[in-house]
Amino acid sequence: MKKPEPLRVVTPKQAREIAGEFGTPVYVYLKQLLREQAREALAFPNAYGLTVRYAMKANPNPNISKLFDSLGIKLDTSSGYEAERAHEAGIDFKNMTLTSQQIPKNLAGLAFSGVEYIACSLRQLDEYGKCLLPNKTVSVRVNPGLGSGGTKRTNTGGPASSFGVWHGQLDEVFEIVRKYGLNVKRVHTHIGSGSDPKIWQKVAGMSLDIVAKFLDKGHDVRILNLGGGYKVARMSYEKATDLQECGKPVEKAFRDFAKKTGVKIHLEIEPGTFLVANAGCIVARIIDIKETPTYKFLINDTGMTEVTRPSLYGAQHPISVVHSDPKRGLERVIVSGHCCESGDILTPAPGDSEALKPRLMERAEIGDLVVIGGAGAYCAGMSTINYNSSPQAAEVMITEEGNKLIRKRQTLEQMTQNEIIIV
Amino acid sequence: MKKPEPLRVVTPKQAREIAGEFGTPVYVYLKQLLREQAREALAFPNAYGLTVRYAMKANPNPNISKLFDSLGIKLDTSSGYEAERAHEAGIDFKNMTLTSQQIPKNLAGLAFSGVEYIACSLRQLDEYGKCLLPNKTVSVRVNPGLGSGGTKRTNTGGPASSFGVWHGQLDEVFEIVRKYGLNVKRVHTHIGSGSDPKIWQKVAGMSLDIVAKFLDKGHDVRILNLGGGYKVARMSYEKATDLQECGKPVEKAFRDFAKKTGVKIHLEIEPGTFLVANAGCIVARIIDIKETPTYKFLINDTGMTEVTRPSLYGAQHPISVVHSDPKRGLERVIVSGHCCESGDILTPAPGDSEALKPRLMERAEIGDLVVIGGAGAYCAGMSTINYNSSPQAAEVMITEEGNKLIRKRQTLEQMTQNEIIIV
Repeated sequence: MKKPEPLRVVTPKQAREIAGEFGTPVYVYLKQLLREQAREALAFPNAYGLTVRYAMKANPNPNISKLFDSLGIKLDTSSGYEAERAHEAGIDFKNMTLTSQQIPKNLAGLAFSGVEYIACSLRQLDEYGKCLLPNKTVSVRVNPGLGSGGTKRTNTGGPASSFGVWHGQLDEVFEIVRKYGLNVKRVHTHIGSGSDPKIWQKVAGMSLDIVAKFLDKGHDVRILNLGGGYKVARMSYEKATDLQECGKPVEKAFRDFAKKTGVKIHLEIEPGTFLVANAGCIVARIIDIKETPTYKFLINDTGMTEVTRPSLYGAQHPISVVHSDPKRGLERVIVSGHCCESGDILTPAPGDSEALKPRLMERAEIGDLVVIGGAGAYCAGMSTINYNSSPQAAEVMITEEGNKLIRKRQTLEQMTQNEIIIV
Repeated sequence: MKKPEPLRVVTPKQAREIAGEFGTPVYVYLKQLLREQAREALAFPNAYGLTVRYAMKANPNPNISKLFDSLGIKLDTSSGYEAERAHEAGIDFKNMTLTSQQIPKNLAGLAFSGVEYIACSLRQLDEYGKCLLPNKTVSVRVNPGLGSGGTKRTNTGGPASSFGVWHGQLDEVFEIVRKYGLNVKRVHTHIGSGSDPKIWQKVAGMSLDIVAKFLDKGHDVRILNLGGGYKVARMSYEKATDLQECGKPVEKAFRDFAKKTGVKIHLEIEPGTFLVANAGCIVARIIDIKETPTYKFLINDTGMTEVTRPSLYGAQHPISVVHSDPKRGLERVIVSGHCCESGDILTPAPGDSEALKPRLMERAEIGDLVVIGGAGAYCAGMSTINYNSSPQAAEVMITEEGNKLIRKRQTLEQMTQNEIIIV
């Protein structure tokens, strides 16, 4: 890295205003950027129609789901809880799919209310069959056998992934759906396709081959959901997935499929990170600066409590110091979180959460605000929120009408409200 | 591993009773085991007195802190929030130290109330000085320059650690305490000493050398806190720290120091994991079983939402299937969490959270309970608790009077109580 990462999502003025009004650390989402990402996702190349579903686990704040809902994006929920949470916020069950590792307790209730169930295992398919829904349709998630990593690494597709029914077990799928008289209307094959158009082409081909097998068995498959997992560029040097480029071979594959089979398949995609990651940031404050002979550490009032991804994956997030001094100069530093935890580091080596990598940044002073970018996805929704008894952070959305609080900061009383003292 | 890990903390009957009454996933702590660990910690060899402080960040449930408090163990808090939380539960501020990366907003208030502040940086020391406490004493955490890993890895001591004041900066410490007329009564040097008696001896020696420097400057140091980080054996094949063995060279070092300087130093230790890790487990349920040509996956109704350590560090936790069928037989499986997250794996390769390692277990069936051991420390307190909108799990303590609920399961309404819908 030759120069510091630029400030994102907020201006220095907005960062100061928001920190002043709502305190730090605080998540900030820019409505305009969410809209722009939505527009880009909705322009995904397609042959016979497109549905974009927001994978709400990326950021479950209801304002984000509702904004996308108002823009014509539907929802994918990853648990029964998410479906209920989105419904409570005002989203119609009929606009949701449910794609989960876990059968919700109220599966029948959700399905009867209109949630479209995507069975992710033979057992799920069987349990869904027992619900005896009147419409007699179901969707099936299949693991097409392709993943983006090695076979002994965690993955969303391939033999090292537990997501979906393994493509070699389709006969068992056919048997279960026959038993309950179900028609498979949708095939789902999310593998986290990355940014290589060739991989997209391959996945589309493999997925359409699976669709063909269902058609051969008399199922009226009309939708293929290719999932999400599109790489975004949080850091300046990273390359994002170009949806236009990756979508073209997919569109062609759908057209070729229609020519061959006479069946026009509707495309569904399920972005999470793509829609929200770079529309959000964390505004935090430098609370201490320490030095050893090897490193200079900037200590923040945020850390793994709001952004666990660096500790979890060695993920890289841009970090910018907010200041108005043109003579600050640059320095290489380790940015640490505020937890009493050696792994609470915001500048790990890329992909190695246990190794440190000093980052070139504008020289910081105690009291400066910092902005951690790329924090719209899997931060507020996936962090060790109460570690060291830190209260869950507030969330703010920057809208046309100003900075709006969309989640209040948790109080200590709320953190302990379910405790029962018996000792 | 030649045979499955044995069931820990609960009997099969208790696991069934607790799952039946409180649902799964549920944390379970055995009061008797907590007592035994407390007794062992309190028997740490020492020359001139011992204080054991429970590092409550390991498990902040107030019943655990209160139990230890009743047994004569004091508290170390890692944030102002923790200090307030423990006080709310009925623990006297005077029984707490505060050792934090972050200066609490109410530092003066806490210190005036009797919390003993351990300054962990030059800035912290200066801010504490400004509080102008009448007793004019302070404690200082020093990084003695020794850590248990390489210099480019995250660590609790050594040049790659931001914890404490670097030992080469003592002159600056002397200057700040002189400015405010403070006496340094306690030196703190937690580096996570592991289980090798030679390392303990070395750390004790280095730490006493630092104490000597303070004595030379006229400070009346009477307490040396050697911190915690004692390795426990969660898995059968792991070797735990033998406190008796590790404490002996420490005791000798303190005696030698007294002979040389005439000053008898009181020993303080600060175990967290040691006190609680193996006294707790998670009772969960197998909700699905899936296969690919390479792996068999057991899917649980728990995962990184209750135990993030495997995803974070590749930590190994024992996992036992609860069943009463003598003919079950064994199998090698990957145990997966319930989140829609490729990294939500409970059987990663040791130390490599992204790699899978099949585990030899009793053959499981859907609906079986499983018990995840070693879950008393850094699980309920450090997990991605609401990921996929999973409600925070319940906690139960097994006491002489039966199984007592000590934390109610979170409701969906509580999870969303701070949200404000503006879109």
